[in-house]
Amino acid sequence: MRNFDERSITAAVRERVGQASDPRLRQVSDALIRHLHDFVREIEPTQEEWSRAIAFLTRTGHMCTANRQEFILLSDALGVSMLVDAINHHLPGGATETTVLGPFYVQEPPELPLGANISPGLAGVPLLVTGSVSSAGGPGLAGAAVDVWHSDGDGYYDVQQLDEDHGLAMRARLRTAPDGAFHFWTIMPAAYPIPNDGPVGEMLAAQGRHPYRPAHVHFMIAAPAHEQLVTHVFVEGDAYLDSDVVFGVKDSLIRPFAEMPAGMAPDGTRVDRPYRHLHYDFALAPQRRVA
Amino acid sequence: MRNFDERSITAAVRERVGQASDPRLRQVSDALIRHLHDFVREIEPTQEEWSRAIAFLTRTGHMCTANRQEFILLSDALGVSMLVDAINHHLPGGATETTVLGPFYVQEPPELPLGANISPGLAGVPLLVTGSVSSAGGPGLAGAAVDVWHSDGDGYYDVQQLDEDHGLAMRARLRTAPDGAFHFWTIMPAAYPIPNDGPVGEMLAAQGRHPYRPAHVHFMIAAPAHEQLVTHVFVEGDAYLDSDVVFGVKDSLIRPFAEMPAGMAPDGTRVDRPYRHLHYDFALAPQRRVA
Ligand SMILES: [Fe+2]
Ligand SMILES: [Fe+2]
Repeated sequence: MRNFDERSITAAVRERVGQASDPRLRQVSDALIRHLHDFVREIEPTQEEWSRAIAFLTRTGHMCTANRQEFILLSDALGVSMLVDAINHHLPGGATETTVLGPFYVQEPPELPLGANISPGLAGVPLLVTGSVSSAGGPGLAGAAVDVWHSDGDGYYDVQQLDEDHGLAMRARLRTAPDGAFHFWTIMPAAYPIPNDGPVGEMLAAQGRHPYRPAHVHFMIAAPAHEQLVTHVFVEGDAYLDSDVVFGVKDSLIRPFAEMPAGMAPDGTRVDRPYRHLHYDFALAPQRRVA
Repeated sequence: MRNFDERSITAAVRERVGQASDPRLRQVSDALIRHLHDFVREIEPTQEEWSRAIAFLTRTGHMCTANRQEFILLSDALGVSMLVDAINHHLPGGATETTVLGPFYVQEPPELPLGANISPGLAGVPLLVTGSVSSAGGPGLAGAAVDVWHSDGDGYYDVQQLDEDHGLAMRARLRTAPDGAFHFWTIMPAAYPIPNDGPVGEMLAAQGRHPYRPAHVHFMIAAPAHEQLVTHVFVEGDAYLDSDVVFGVKDSLIRPFAEMPAGMAPDGTRVDRPYRHLHYDFALAPQRRVA
């Protein structure tokens, strides 16, 4: 275990981590070392480039706070989050497709009744969201927890501008009706840049990439005996649908956010100005049995 | 640029980073994405494992301060630092071999005269270090800057215990004599664990690895028209020579730290108790010409 050169060191490190007692950790460590060393051998970094990589990771860590997760942004921007998503969601036919969670989910969002306005008092174009939750190829699911969150018309989430005057908004947990239906009012979201005043923003700029995501509404839906669904619905016609910075768009998740005139809305609400209407029917995959 | 599955996403991300204007960044980004995605596809992480990886990197970043560089420790413990070292040091015959810098180097250490005791007042076994600096296969180099640093007999570096009573110690910059020779007094270093109260320590424990490095003295040597040399000299007989946690040991860097009786030392100093003596002749590679 001495005198390693740029080939033999890999075998030496693999031998060392082969002592891990947990088989999964052993497997992951071994794969990490092989792929990481292959990467380093391919690019042959100078010592100065290696130092810059250490500094980049350090700044990425220092950027992480309770309200900012720069390593998730990095994973998103490198396509790793969508890759992990794809690996974990070989879903049965008929189930709604998944996409990334993103960094703006808040645990235990405010529970609101069906039909509520989840963004009261906020400026923006009114948006009615209607939809349903069913078991893929099966019946509607009563009482499913529908967590929803999205940006405002300027592209900002509530958690990006929390202060004494601004609390949680544009997010809620709803429960589906006995037939699986749900609806709520909110305001139109907008396309937005992922936070780009940190190392990930520097990386995107250096790579010649814009930091934008097409406008979307996030959904996380849970019902007993079904896989939790984490997805978005994207706004049809958005300019960034073909260049989402985190590679999250799927055709099946794009819907019109239809322009509607003032008047009586489908849920019976009288609206005094034009509004938009999104409808999406979600289908959850039955839970896989664990042997 | 939509509807990616676990294979097609890699091509999509590579296409995106192919827009980088800097060719080196384009090359590194492309290689990173290929190797990183291959790694993820091989291990097929669950969403929960992916979250744990994000949390590990975040904690690693938060552990980094002015006096602690946890990402360097991670690079060291995964063999990446020694791999980068090997890639960058295909040295001509006769040049002293290199090893890792480690996290305890301090820029612009105190300049002390030849023969100085660089650890005055510190408890420990006295150590006389004698040596020389020459051009590989050539003459001694006058006025070469010899930076030296090492741990105390308990395995701690000065920078790990700085406070109002403890300043820099066991480190100095010396200048070689006209014939290239140098010598100084200090105390014996000891084997030590790399800092293991953070995420890297957790990783080592989970991998069933001890955190120790064999006892050594660090040298960084610079002279005009020569490559800077970053290396250690290891203590012959140390129990960890074959299991250095950072894979840094090379046979050519091991020397006896000879046990010497009290009396007249080789430099003419009268020593009233037993001491140790290390001698090492360093040879620097001539600077490569940049075309
Ligand atoms: Fe979002
Ligand atoms: Fe050291």
